[in-house]
Amino acid sequence: MIQNEKEINAIVHQAEGGFQFLQQSNVIERAELMHTIANEIEAIGKVLIETAHLETALPIARLEGEKARMVNQWRMYADAIHTGLYSEARIDKSADGRIDLRKYNKGLGPVVVFGASNFPFAFSTAGGDTASAVGAGCSVIVKAHPAHVKTSQLMADAIHRGILKYGAPAGVFSHVRSDSFAIGAQLVQHPLIKAVAFTGSFAGGKTLYDLGQSRPDPIPVFAEMGSINPVFVLPDYLENNLHAFAKQYIGSLVLGVGQFCTNPGVLIGLEGENLDALKIHLKKEIQTIPGGKMLHRGILESYDRLRSERIQWDGVRILAEGEDSMQEGFAQAMLMEADAAQVLINPLLLEEVFGPFGLVVSCTDIDEMTSLMKHLPGQISLTLAASADDMRKYQALFTVAQDKCGRLLFQGMPTGVEVRYAMQHGGPFPATTDSRFTSVGPDAIKRFLRPISFQNWPNEFLPKELQDSNPLQIKRLINQDWAT
Amino acid sequence: MIQNEKEINAIVHQAEGGFQFLQQSNVIERAELMHTIANEIEAIGKVLIETAHLETALPIARLEGEKARMVNQWRMYADAIHTGLYSEARIDKSADGRIDLRKYNKGLGPVVVFGASNFPFAFSTAGGDTASAVGAGCSVIVKAHPAHVKTSQLMADAIHRGILKYGAPAGVFSHVRSDSFAIGAQLVQHPLIKAVAFTGSFAGGKTLYDLGQSRPDPIPVFAEMGSINPVFVLPDYLENNLHAFAKQYIGSLVLGVGQFCTNPGVLIGLEGENLDALKIHLKKEIQTIPGGKMLHRGILESYDRLRSERIQWDGVRILAEGEDSMQEGFAQAMLMEADAAQVLINPLLLEEVFGPFGLVVSCTDIDEMTSLMKHLPGQISLTLAASADDMRKYQALFTVAQDKCGRLLFQGMPTGVEVRYAMQHGGPFPATTDSRFTSVGPDAIKRFLRPISFQNWPNEFLPKELQDSNPLQIKRLINQDWAT
Repeated sequence: MIQNEKEINAIVHQAEGGFQFLQQSNVIERAELMHTIANEIEAIGKVLIETAHLETALPIARLEGEKARMVNQWRMYADAIHTGLYSEARIDKSADGRIDLRKYNKGLGPVVVFGASNFPFAFSTAGGDTASAVGAGCSVIVKAHPAHVKTSQLMADAIHRGILKYGAPAGVFSHVRSDSFAIGAQLVQHPLIKAVAFTGSFAGGKTLYDLGQSRPDPIPVFAEMGSINPVFVLPDYLENNLHAFAKQYIGSLVLGVGQFCTNPGVLIGLEGENLDALKIHLKKEIQTIPGGKMLHRGILESYDRLRSERIQWDGVRILAEGEDSMQEGFAQAMLMEADAAQVLINPLLLEEVFGPFGLVVSCTDIDEMTSLMKHLPGQISLTLAASADDMRKYQALFTVAQDKCGRLLFQGMPTGVEVRYAMQHGGPFPATTDSRFTSVGPDAIKRFLRPISFQNWPNEFLPKELQDSNPLQIKRLINQDWAT
Repeated sequence: MIQNEKEINAIVHQAEGGFQFLQQSNVIERAELMHTIANEIEAIGKVLIETAHLETALPIARLEGEKARMVNQWRMYADAIHTGLYSEARIDKSADGRIDLRKYNKGLGPVVVFGASNFPFAFSTAGGDTASAVGAGCSVIVKAHPAHVKTSQLMADAIHRGILKYGAPAGVFSHVRSDSFAIGAQLVQHPLIKAVAFTGSFAGGKTLYDLGQSRPDPIPVFAEMGSINPVFVLPDYLENNLHAFAKQYIGSLVLGVGQFCTNPGVLIGLEGENLDALKIHLKKEIQTIPGGKMLHRGILESYDRLRSERIQWDGVRILAEGEDSMQEGFAQAMLMEADAAQVLINPLLLEEVFGPFGLVVSCTDIDEMTSLMKHLPGQISLTLAASADDMRKYQALFTVAQDKCGRLLFQGMPTGVEVRYAMQHGGPFPATTDSRFTSVGPDAIKRFLRPISFQNWPNEFLPKELQDSNPLQIKRLINQDWAT
């Protein structure tokens, strides 16, 4: 356990050394380092799954899938930097030799990562933030999540084995164990730290963001702070998909005991017979859902408290509940309902209840639905459960929706975040602190880069990414044309 | 003149309407709008140059060149978005149809631009910030610089003629005239404003940055706040270029009466015979430099005050002065000198003196020079006046330099900023508030974009940038491969 500022300072200086090493590396070398780390993580064996299962209560099958995703992230991001996509090499040379300007992206510097409790692999110690920062050429300091420190240590050890095998200095990756908020704050405020990534609550993320901005030299703090991921169901679609939609919504709502940042916490429809029928279907679906064990006591307590608060609020009614497992640490799924008019005057109803909780909102007409959408804070995702006819009829909703989210779904449910180039996981504040970046998919690498131009540099001193012969064979924009 | 919050609110709402219009446009349409605006600015005629000359005291020839640059920026950025480079369209489809995810970049929302006094065209009302924001699909509100309001109005009128001719709503561009800081602050804090661009002083830029970060929903504030653009002269290069280097340095120092953000305000060398000889050359060069009229009284007062302060400081000596023109509003060029040891204990010596002012710093050895470089705050540019032999001998300097600046020059001088893809104009704090972006060159467009993903959307509702048939013929990354 890290105890004091002196130890933090030593760790950050070691990370600065790691950064300087990575800064001398090119994208091909870094890709190799990342694959070497991926091999070591992949090789950890069943102790990793077993430890994570004990620490998080997440099912074995889910953890196995998540481990594969974690390994895949390292490999995919390695392959992505290998192409030079994120180097963004640009060379401008004038025929008369007067201008020789070359630009590429380099790492920002040492990065601090605060992992999430709900993804002990994919968003934690060896998760997407760490992989994308290393891909960018940044060293990483992970503050281990207190809810799964043993799992975290196993991954940190694997990363260190990879680093050693590749021949990089240990400072490329550091693992800090501490229960103290002050230690995290010291990391964020250390002058050598150049960026922060966080996944978790709004309170936690915003606090770190403010710490980063109030430094003498502000730094980017990428905080993903959750979302209610509203689902708007439109009349024609609802008419034809009553039962299937109810089943799909409840399935998504209770997936992983509702502990996903893309959990669809609000369902919005137009009042009438079909919405009444939908409610009956939703009720039927949720009533058979058994309780599920939550990640840790703190999350369950918060879930129970937020549900209880809402029951007291004007115009909020319980629509249906899942089974009560009567087991220590288990959460009961729940649906509440309210009218849009009520939601519009009580914006707290649009705050996240982390867990298997859904609020069904009835709008009197499409204008009220549009108003409600305009009223929404920024979201990671927004879903239009609509038919093509609905889309043609209610075009305005589509326009408004684009201002409100990072990912806009047509039908389907927002849970299930694909690690792809086209994924945007991040939305307007307060979903994240910076809607311009994603924390999932290779584009997550962009968060930790900054460009530097070299003017009139002799070829031999330039980074390989910018040398005349293009030794790394990457894609480059030369005098406004793409060339390999 | 804008007087109150109510008027500001009306203007911002109009800008929101302009943004919604641009948001419906595709990159080809927006490129056409930008060329139409460029035509109108180009056509203003000599009244623009004459007005700017009267308001800024900048020479006619310089203003004509800057006007051409301003027009070129609109055209170049228009051509850049036309290729789809900044749309960053990515499409991921699985063969089984399970995944259909498409992402592109859209505009952030209405942007407020605070222009610079020293570039009444290229960094002002119709300058690079405005052009890049419109290119990104954002509407713009310019707060006219009080030092050239008439020039600003002429450009605003031309932009409006272009907007009208194209058939866009007036709210795409708004022009606010006010001398009040409060009006600027209200703009930055208005909930509908989504980004800010500023070029000017550290005090001004940092104040706007803090206003942007302390909003309930923080927004990006891109402030370019100046730089001392240090020039490090190394032994072998100096030995062989004494006279030419002195001439080049003084030429760059007094260019435009030193009123460039890339002005080389500090010259650092190793003490010894050659540095002594250089000082004699520098002295000879600067003594013949006539006084030059500065942009406005405020800048001259600040220049004179900062020079006078430094004369009082320990270890700071006047090395040489330019001619004193004895004319109202004119600035006298000046060189001071100090030892590196003094600079290391008095960091104020590394702050910018905006104007034709240079500080020559002597280092006892290369270690002290390296320490001084490590000690530097972030810079827009850094120059190594070095030979290839110097570079081989003093590699560590090259490594440190890359952490300190946005643009790294080999020989030459930092003044003269090319509008190119490979240009990085922006450096680590406090040179700018965000080293990850440039304010010069087409990449400036990136500042005002955010990605949005569309999941499973029927082709007909997608933006043209993402439709199956690629109707705009832009470059897209499809299943990890580039395709047109």
